[in-house]
Amino acid sequence: MRILVVGSGGVGDAVARIAGRRDFFERMVVADHDTARAERTVAAVQAHPATRHPERFVAAHVDASDEEGIAALAREHGVTHVLNAVDPRFVMPVFRAALAAGADYLDMAMSLSRPHPEEPYARTGVRLGDEQFAEEDRWRAAGRLALVGMGVEPGLSDVLARYASDHLFSHITELGTRDGSNLVVLGDDGEPVFAPSFSIWTTIEECLNPPVVWERSRAEAGGSTEAGWYTVPPFHEPEVFDFPGGIGPVECVHVEHEEVLLMPRFLQADKVTFKYGLGEEFIGVLRTLHTLGLDRTDPVRVRGSDGAPVAVSPRDVVAACLPDPAGLGDRMQGATCAGVLVTGTGKDGAPRAAYLHHVVDNAWSMSEYGAQCVVWQTAVNPVVALELLAGGAWAGAGVLGPEAFDAVPFLELLAAPEPAGYGSPWAVQER
Amino acid sequence: MRILVVGSGGVGDAVARIAGRRDFFERMVVADHDTARAERTVAAVQAHPATRHPERFVAAHVDASDEEGIAALAREHGVTHVLNAVDPRFVMPVFRAALAAGADYLDMAMSLSRPHPEEPYARTGVRLGDEQFAEEDRWRAAGRLALVGMGVEPGLSDVLARYASDHLFSHITELGTRDGSNLVVLGDDGEPVFAPSFSIWTTIEECLNPPVVWERSRAEAGGSTEAGWYTVPPFHEPEVFDFPGGIGPVECVHVEHEEVLLMPRFLQADKVTFKYGLGEEFIGVLRTLHTLGLDRTDPVRVRGSDGAPVAVSPRDVVAACLPDPAGLGDRMQGATCAGVLVTGTGKDGAPRAAYLHHVVDNAWSMSEYGAQCVVWQTAVNPVVALELLAGGAWAGAGVLGPEAFDAVPFLELLAAPEPAGYGSPWAVQER
Repeated sequence: MRILVVGSGGVGDAVARIAGRRDFFERMVVADHDTARAERTVAAVQAHPATRHPERFVAAHVDASDEEGIAALAREHGVTHVLNAVDPRFVMPVFRAALAAGADYLDMAMSLSRPHPEEPYARTGVRLGDEQFAEEDRWRAAGRLALVGMGVEPGLSDVLARYASDHLFSHITELGTRDGSNLVVLGDDGEPVFAPSFSIWTTIEECLNPPVVWERSRAEAGGSTEAGWYTVPPFHEPEVFDFPGGIGPVECVHVEHEEVLLMPRFLQADKVTFKYGLGEEFIGVLRTLHTLGLDRTDPVRVRGSDGAPVAVSPRDVVAACLPDPAGLGDRMQGATCAGVLVTGTGKDGAPRAAYLHHVVDNAWSMSEYGAQCVVWQTAVNPVVALELLAGGAWAGAGVLGPEAFDAVPFLELLAAPEPAGYGSPWAVQER
Repeated sequence: MRILVVGSGGVGDAVARIAGRRDFFERMVVADHDTARAERTVAAVQAHPATRHPERFVAAHVDASDEEGIAALAREHGVTHVLNAVDPRFVMPVFRAALAAGADYLDMAMSLSRPHPEEPYARTGVRLGDEQFAEEDRWRAAGRLALVGMGVEPGLSDVLARYASDHLFSHITELGTRDGSNLVVLGDDGEPVFAPSFSIWTTIEECLNPPVVWERSRAEAGGSTEAGWYTVPPFHEPEVFDFPGGIGPVECVHVEHEEVLLMPRFLQADKVTFKYGLGEEFIGVLRTLHTLGLDRTDPVRVRGSDGAPVAVSPRDVVAACLPDPAGLGDRMQGATCAGVLVTGTGKDGAPRAAYLHHVVDNAWSMSEYGAQCVVWQTAVNPVVALELLAGGAWAGAGVLGPEAFDAVPFLELLAAPEPAGYGSPWAVQER
């Protein structure tokens, strides 16, 4: 297996650090538009005492918007698998470049949505992943695999839903992904400061786009899986969810997320939801950004610092004002939890509610990998998936979500202690 | 009198509309970096039936950062008075250009402050207007007048303070400028939307810079007027002030404002303060902008919409995302009030508290002048001052605030019905 990682921001960097300890591939090309950043990642991995075969890692330059350039880079290195680790604006060029280069493809976020033009908070417009699924025939015809949404959420959450579906439940009323943390970032004075622990660009996209929900009854009434999706207003149906792992209660609201688009395609459930534990302060910040139009991605014209007029996306400027979340690990405290709350009927016929989840403590991921916990938790899952694909435990063609594959080998490999596995356990909490 | 107005944004445009009805000058050059905008102002004034001698108005191009270019434009038109109506970043080049061209100068905001590097919320650093007062000798030597802070606040508030000092009080314990409104901007659906009624750039500067206060006891202890100034944290000492004119109670907090720097130089008082009626929602927005670093003026680097890296000021991007407040007049409802709460001992020796104030209703300013009320209230005062200077009722040399001049002719001219005056009454409310 020869892997091209497109993007060496927080997640791409952690992918390389995690993969450094594994033997299943013969080359990893770490590429970024900022070549020096890719080179820093490769140098760090090569210098780490736990890294095996450091010569497997090479840095390269790439422009994630340039489909032909990505394909050329993949061919140059004989790449068999392209892992997309840039922000979701660039999903389609990277996705198409992989197929053009004859490689399989993985990502951690799917192609972007566009709201319904007339009823944005009631009906879906273009949905997350629609552009990718529209090209599924080409992938299937080529016998190539696009494994989409293979981070932690989407990703591990989908794997956990598949596990619950296969092994814990006979009927599922709701697959409810729930994500929360008690992370705080400390300032120079030791007091907590405002600093999102994940890409603000993606967080705004997730939280201010119309949240999406799927219901089987609507799908059946409409005669198609597609008919089951609908939207609700931002920050809809707040609920306090009590997270395990010492995190405790966090206010969660509906947001737009890939799980809701993936699970109904591959699993049986009456309802599929995603709620994100944003907390009150963060919800307030997002509301204000939206009120002021600073969440917008269409450019506004301003004078640049040299006096000449320039056009910039307000959301890019917001992101540029905040610290890079990947660099906050050593000022961060707490843990993050991803998981899916499954409700329905157990295998024994009795009502059951179980929260299948995975907790990562920041102090652990920093000391073990030098990666902050949200970034590490996102990055470990595509590496596990690549290892399963390399060994043949997972195989397929077309555009598939993580829940299309057997969950057991994935969860075993993730949880098994090193060196056999990745040493990161998951758990089931009965509710 | 031949006037150059630098800047034809909201206030510059309203200056021309107001001046169009007066006879005291023979030329008004309306100049902007966006020449088309200046031309629109001149065309609107010339087309208005109430405008006298429309041929007095001409449009021109100007770069407010280019001292020599401004001076050349002033000389070209034989300008006797330069009125600065651009944002306060450009005070110094316009101020210097006026002197270089042998003209008198007026502005509505003074040169910018810089916080104290070690104790920003306790001590002043560079104060508002410091750069201008540092050049006072040159103005006095040339026999030229720089009348600074001659809008509504600073401006009319200072005139009202002078009036109270001369005619209502024998001893003043506090000159407390208080500004508030009940303005709302209605969206397309008729519901109120978030839209500041004055330049967001200036509002951020006023509200997030360390607020300044002056106390005579500190000045006396330190042996100089300068020793009397100190700073407090943003949003300090919130109080609910009950505004007249149907506005009612509004939450007010200390902000940095020119009155606090001007009044102690020319008037006798124990304490000088400025509190701005921001309201809770707006305070929340400003806090969030500050938390995210979006109030910053130093540039951040982002990719421009053409893919090339550019450097922009986050605050400029915030301003570009919001509607131009000058264009909101026909979607605005309510009134704005400027004034000074004077407390102390009356001329009769009894304790007295009086709020000297001026209310402008938006419906009135829109129907009479096509200018929204906050902009109109700012713009009328420098026009009144220019008329007094043209007639000789006001005269002086050096860098002087509005309170350096007799308040009576100003307040009479402002309040007298048209055509003798400007038809905009002020009032004293005993408290």
